[in-house]
Amino acid sequence: MMHAINKKIYYHDTDCGGVVYYANYLKYFEEARTEYLADRGINLIEMAKEGFLFVVKKVDIEYKSPGRYGDKLTVTSEITKLRSASMQFTQEVKRGDLLIVAAKTVLVCIDKTFHPTAMSDDLIEKIK
Amino acid sequence: MMHAINKKIYYHDTDCGGVVYYANYLKYFEEARTEYLADRGINLIEMAKEGFLFVVKKVDIEYKSPGRYGDKLTVTSEITKLRSASMQFTQEVKRGDLLIVAAKTVLVCIDKTFHPTAMSDDLIEKIK
Amino acid sequence: MMHAINKKIYYHDTDCGGVVYYANYLKYFEEARTEYLADRGINLIEMAKEGFLFVVKKVDIEYKSPGRYGDKLTVTSEITKLRSASMQFTQEVKRGDLLIVAAKTVLVCIDKTFHPTAMSDDLIEKIK
Amino acid sequence: MMHAINKKIYYHDTDCGGVVYYANYLKYFEEARTEYLADRGINLIEMAKEGFLFVVKKVDIEYKSPGRYGDKLTVTSEITKLRSASMQFTQEVKRGDLLIVAAKTVLVCIDKTFHPTAMSDDLIEKIK
Repeated sequence: MMHAINKKIYYHDTDCGGVVYYANYLKYFEEARTEYLADRGINLIEMAKEGFLFVVKKVDIEYKSPGRYGDKLTVTSEITKLRSASMQFTQEVKRGDLLIVAAKTVLVCIDKTFHPTAMSDDLIEKIK
Repeated sequence: MMHAINKKIYYHDTDCGGVVYYANYLKYFEEARTEYLADRGINLIEMAKEGFLFVVKKVDIEYKSPGRYGDKLTVTSEITKLRSASMQFTQEVKRGDLLIVAAKTVLVCIDKTFHPTAMSDDLIEKIK
Repeated sequence: MMHAINKKIYYHDTDCGGVVYYANYLKYFEEARTEYLADRGINLIEMAKEGFLFVVKKVDIEYKSPGRYGDKLTVTSEITKLRSASMQFTQEVKRGDLLIVAAKTVLVCIDKTFHPTAMSDDLIEKIK
Repeated sequence: MMHAINKKIYYHDTDCGGVVYYANYLKYFEEARTEYLADRGINLIEMAKEGFLFVVKKVDIEYKSPGRYGDKLTVTSEITKLRSASMQFTQEVKRGDLLIVAAKTVLVCIDKTFHPTAMSDDLIEKIK
C-alpha cells in the first residue's frame, strides 16, 4: 500500500545553508498526499466543490539527513490511521535508501462551516 | 511621494547560491505595494469584498546586486503611471544606498467577472 | 522570558483555501527564533563564520485555527529545554488572544563536519 | 529547438485570490531552464564546482490568464539570444493552448569573483 512520487530539488527549494529549507518538505508531503489520493480516485477539487475539505491538524516531522540541490528524492506515503473524520499519513523523503525526513501528518475532514465531519462510506472505501 | 518599508532577510529568503532567491523579491514588492496603499487608506480586503481586485499584469525586474542572509533592506515604492483601470509601480530594493533590485509593475483593477474595470474617482483620489 | 515578534499576512503567505499555507508557519518560527537569539546578542552569521550552525532536528506542530490574509499575528518564543548541544523552542502564533498554531522545535548545534557539538559556556549563558 | 516540462499546480503554488501566486512562475521558469540545459548535457552543479554560475540579470514577465489549483501546465523554453557571457531565454506557461504567462529572462555567466565571464566554446556549443 506504499505510494511514491519523485521530487527533484532546484535552487528555490534550498537555502543559503546549502540544503533544502526545512519548511519546504511540507510542500513535498502535500504533493505526495494529493497524488496518493488522486491514485485512489479522490479528486480534492471535486471534494471541495461538494463542500468537503481536508485540513492539516498536526505534523510531527524529523530531519535525519540534509537534502541538497540537484537531488532526486522519493516521497513515500501511507495511511496509518483512518477514522470517520480524520486520517494519519506516515511519509518519508529518501535519497536512494538514505532517509532524509520522516513525518506523521493528521488531516481532518471539514465541511462548509469549518467543522469536522464524517467522511462518506464511499470516500473511506476509496482511501482504504 | 516615495514610500518605504523595511525587510530583513532570513534563511527562507535565500537559496544555496548564498543569495536571496530571485523570485522572492516579488513577494517583498507585493508587501511594499500593500503598505503603500494601506498608508493611503486603501484596504485591499475591503476592496475585494466590494468585488474589486488588483491583479499584476506585467513585471520588468532587474537584478543589480545580490541580497544576502541577515541583510536589512529597504523597499521603496512610487506610482509612476495612473490610468482609469491600471497603474504602474516603480519599486526598488536597497541595502543602504546600494541598489539591489529595480522593478516596474503594472496592476490592473478587475471586477467579479475578472474583466478590467475603471477605478472609482474616490479610489483614484486616494492613490494620488 | 517570553519573546514576541509581529507578523503581517500577505497574499504570498496564503493558499487558495483562503488561509495561511501550513508550511509557511515554519518560516515565521524561523524568523522568531532568529530574533529571539539576536535579542540575546547571538548573531547566527557570526556563529556560522566560526563554524557553528543550528539545524532543526524535529518539529511538532499543531494547527488550531486558520490564519488569514491581512491578519496581524504575534509569534511568541521561549526556550523550554537547554542541553549542551541542543535546545527546544516552544512557539505560538496568535491573533490577539486566539491561538492559531503551536509548535515545539528541537535545534541541534553542529560543527563544520556536520556533527553535533557542545555549545560554548558563553553561548549557553547568553541563551539563558 | 523548443523544450517543454510539465508542472502540476498544488495548494502551495496558489494564493487566497484563488490563483497561482505571481512570483511562483519564476520558480517554474528556473526548473524549466535547468532541465533545458540538463537535456543538452549541461550540469549546473558541475559548472558551479568549476567556478561558473549563471545568475539572472533581468526578467520581463507578462501575466495573460490565471493558473489555478489542479492545473496541469506546460512550461516551454527556448534560447533567443546567445552571447559570449550571457543568454536570453524566452519561456511560456500554458494550459493546453491557452497562454498563462510569457517571460524573457537574461542570464549572465559569472566566475568566482562574481564578475561576468565568457562561456567556454564547449559550453556555447552545447547550449546551441
